[in-house]
Order: sequence, then C-alpha cells, then structure tokens
Amino acid sequence: MPLLVVGSVALDCVETPTDKRDDVLGGSAVFFSYAASFFSRVRMIGAVGEDWPQQHTALLNRRGIDTSGIQAIAGEKTFRWRGRYLPNMNDRETIEVHLNVLEKFQPQLNETHRNCRFLFLGNASPKVQLQVLDQAKGAELTVADTMDLWINIQRDDLGELLRRVDGLVLNDSEAKLLAGDENLVRAGHAVRAMGPKFVVIKKGEHGAMFFSEHEMYVMPAYPTALVLDPTGAGDSFAGGMMGHLAALGRFDAQALKEALAYGVVTASFTVEDFSLDRLEGISRHDLDQRLAVYRKMLAF
Amino acid sequence: MPLLVVGSVALDCVETPTDKRDDVLGGSAVFFSYAASFFSRVRMIGAVGEDWPQQHTALLNRRGIDTSGIQAIAGEKTFRWRGRYLPNMNDRETIEVHLNVLEKFQPQLNETHRNCRFLFLGNASPKVQLQVLDQAKGAELTVADTMDLWINIQRDDLGELLRRVDGLVLNDSEAKLLAGDENLVRAGHAVRAMGPKFVVIKKGEHGAMFFSEHEMYVMPAYPTALVLDPTGAGDSFAGGMMGHLAALGRFDAQALKEALAYGVVTASFTVEDFSLDRLEGISRHDLDQRLAVYRKMLAF
Repeated sequence: MPLLVVGSVALDCVETPTDKRDDVLGGSAVFFSYAASFFSRVRMIGAVGEDWPQQHTALLNRRGIDTSGIQAIAGEKTFRWRGRYLPNMNDRETIEVHLNVLEKFQPQLNETHRNCRFLFLGNASPKVQLQVLDQAKGAELTVADTMDLWINIQRDDLGELLRRVDGLVLNDSEAKLLAGDENLVRAGHAVRAMGPKFVVIKKGEHGAMFFSEHEMYVMPAYPTALVLDPTGAGDSFAGGMMGHLAALGRFDAQALKEALAYGVVTASFTVEDFSLDRLEGISRHDLDQRLAVYRKMLAF
Repeated sequence: MPLLVVGSVALDCVETPTDKRDDVLGGSAVFFSYAASFFSRVRMIGAVGEDWPQQHTALLNRRGIDTSGIQAIAGEKTFRWRGRYLPNMNDRETIEVHLNVLEKFQPQLNETHRNCRFLFLGNASPKVQLQVLDQAKGAELTVADTMDLWINIQRDDLGELLRRVDGLVLNDSEAKLLAGDENLVRAGHAVRAMGPKFVVIKKGEHGAMFFSEHEMYVMPAYPTALVLDPTGAGDSFAGGMMGHLAALGRFDAQALKEALAYGVVTASFTVEDFSLDRLEGISRHDLDQRLAVYRKMLAF
C-alpha cells in the first residue's frame, strides 16, 4: 500500500567528536523514505534548490521511491542544516540552519498523492502540515512529527493539527515541553489527550514510548557499539514504523507494536554511519535478522 | 537460600523539586535488603551510630531480615547523606555526605554470614569489599556495586576486586568512566573484560543493560507516572535481582535475565515514594503482577 511522506530534503553538515561530513544527503523526508522503502512503496513530496545534486535523487529512485513530488525551485537553494554532536553522541547543538527553499514552500499533492492511504507529515510548520492534510483526502492513517519551535510559536495551529491526525511522533524533550510535565509517562498521556489516537515519544539512545487509550509501553533502543552519526535516526524510526504499517495495510494495536520494533531496528542501522551510508549497505533481510535478535533480547 | 549483603545503613535527607524529607531511613544495605526480602531470606551487615532509631531495625526485622550483623558503634554517628534531585527526577546532586561511623568500619562476618552462598557487596571502598570477600568462604555468587569515587582514587584495588567477583553492578556514568568510553555497549564489554563474569549497567529511568561473554541485552525501566524519590532505586534493583537468584538457588543465563526483570520492577515501586514508604505498602503479589505487565509490554 503506497505511503506518502511530505517533509524536508536537505544538505547536512555533521560534526561528531571524531569525524565530520559536509553537504551530505539528509532531511526528514529523505531518511523517512529510504527507511520505509525496505517495507513498502513510498512517494515523496519536498522541495530543493538549484544546487541540488541529481545523484541524490537517483539514489532514492534506485530504492524504488517515487520522487516525482520533489520540486526543484529556480533561483532558490536547498535547505541546509549544520549540527554538532556532544561526546555522548545523543545530544547535539544546531550550529546553522538555512531554510532557503523551505521558507515559502507550499506542498501540492497530485491525484496519486491524494489517494495514498498512509501519510506521514514530517516536521514542518503546523500551518503547512494542515494544508497537506486538507489535500490528502484518501489518507486513512495520518501521522505527524513536530518540534519545539512550533510548540513555542504556533501552538494554536499545532493544537488543530493534533485534533486532526491519528498519530503524533515527537522527541522526549518536545513531549515534556508540549505537556508542561517532566514525567514522560504523564506527558505522553497528556499529549494524547490533545487529540491523536496514539503518541510515540522518541528517546534517542533510550528507545521509544507508545501511548494510546488502552496501551502504554516502552521499547528500548537496539544497543549498537558503533554510533557514528545519529542524524536521521528519528526519521528512519518513523519510516520503518510507517513502512511496516503500510505494508500490512492495517494499524491495529498489534501491528503498531511490531511497527515500533521495526522502527527501532531501522534507526539502529542509520546511526552506524553518516547520512544514508549504512542503510545503503543493508537489505530487508538484515532488518528482519536484527528484529529477531531484538525480539529475543526482550523476552525473558 | 540466604543472601548476605554488606553495605551502608544511612539517614538520608532528600529534596525534590516539590517535596523534601529529613533523616529518613536509607543506605545501600537497607534498600537492598528490603527489596530482596520479597524473594529470599536476607542477612545484613552494616554499622550505625548512637543516634540510630531502633524503630528502623524493627521495620527490617518485621520483613524477616536478619539484622544481627548491624553493629551499633558507641560514640559514633550514623552515616548521613543529603541530596537534591533536578526537575527531571533522574539526575541529582549530593549536597552533604558525613561518613561518620563508616569512616573506620571494617565488616566482620560470623560463621552464619560466612556460609551464605549469595553475597552482595554494596558500594564501599574496594579495600573493604576485598576484606569481606576474603571472609565470605561459602559464597558461590558474589556481586559488587561501586562508584566514581573508587574508580578515581582506588583503581588498583577496584581492579583486584573485579578479577575476584562474579558480577558487577554500576551506573552508566560510572561504566563510561571506568571503561574510558562514551558508548555504553563498548563500555559494558570493556568492564566485563576486566574480570567479572557479568556486568549490569544501571541507567536510572532508562533501565539496565546486561553483559556476559555470550549475551548482551537491554531492559527498559518500568514506566511509572509517579516518581517521588528515586533514592535507593539502584540498590532495590540489585536487591530484587539478587533476591530472585538466591530464591532460585542458581544463576544461569535464564535466571539472570528474569532476575534483572524483577530488579527493574522492584525499583519501579521504590521510586513511587520516599525512603521505603512504597515498598512497605506492597506484597510479593504486587511485584509478580507488575512483572507480568512488564513481560507483556516487551513482547511483540
């Protein structure tokens, strides 16, 4: 079942305590799509500038991702982010952000996009996310990401978004900010009470928590000895999760739990190298194999 | 099978963002013993001063804990600790420590203590822990805790201890310090290579990790909406873990994993109130019930 993602396409500059990369492929829609492509067909909507290297699009196409929704805007530059990871490799600081083409981007869905039954709204302003939601008439499962910026400056629009989406995926610090509560269990329930049927709190190296009306659980991150670059872990997590749901064509409690586990496992590969480098070297079989190890790890 | 613990007996002053308690019952041997008493017979060794309130001993005795190894030292005062929790309720700062009676305490094991087959060495100087180990001739499973102070100032003695104990339990920050590695997976393996057959890294609200020669896994904390005071969580975790092993009378891989899960669940009750207040209100049935929820939570 095709899965639609609307989000950022970026050129990232990443610094870690031991290494760095300039102008590598990044962005929420890119990590999400690549991760989801191991599970289902994916269609992407995003915008790039004149500086966009065509080989990046080719890389996505080789995974069968429909990139016809990536608009190249004349006279504009691609979104750029520069970040630096602290020695713990979990916390980071943003050094530079240049919205560039994203400043005025208003996603337009064509007929094929509108008919997608599974929709992921990557982090963007709630106003833009609502515009996409208005167009996505065929979407049966809608899940959104958000960030602290929108919680702080577009609270009302975010509130409307939360009343309209089925699921929300956000970081632990964002959940605390949105709920005004330092306890993640209470914060998760409070955010869910704002509208979505389920909430997933991403805790970075500490895994993820799930909240629905009748369920609450926590899943640890898959422990990996090799963390080279955590950038995109959260979006790959969401991609693995939504990809699995789209493949199943359902989103009951059991499907959601298994989907979260696939999200955890997919993200654990992403962090093992910069950009998409690690994901490029694996197959669906590697994901299934690590899922089996993860399942055994949690059984006692 | 009786379980012996040697550790601190304390009067704690605890401040949280919303509440505080002065001079409440605490100490590693106390939290450990109380937690372990839900599973097996426990014998305690420790020291207190003239200021020790006898009702605390009576509380431990009511749980069937053998407190005959608690020495009251004339002219001395009980060990005292004062700490303050940050708003996240996971990190804390130590405001005051008065070693008092612990400054010169040298634990003496009687015949009954020497014959205990399960031994837990609560956090103390490695020199003292080694003295206990020398006396504990009947111990078949020996597990120690440690802290950053000893890693920094008694590295050689700690090294000898690690070569002699079966298991080590320590915090994530301590594991990183001891291994000199910020990645917890690598740090855990490195600490295990220093001697112990297994290493358990406690991650506070994020659970625990286990390392042995053939196994490595992570268990999340049991998510609780009510965290009033995390003091003693780590020692209750160790108490639940060792208590279960002592009750089984074995410590194979399967027993250890189930023991870790019991540790997680026991600690999750401890944090729900100050001192031993929450543990005082529960029974073994409550632990088993929460364990069942935890097991289900991790299955997918």
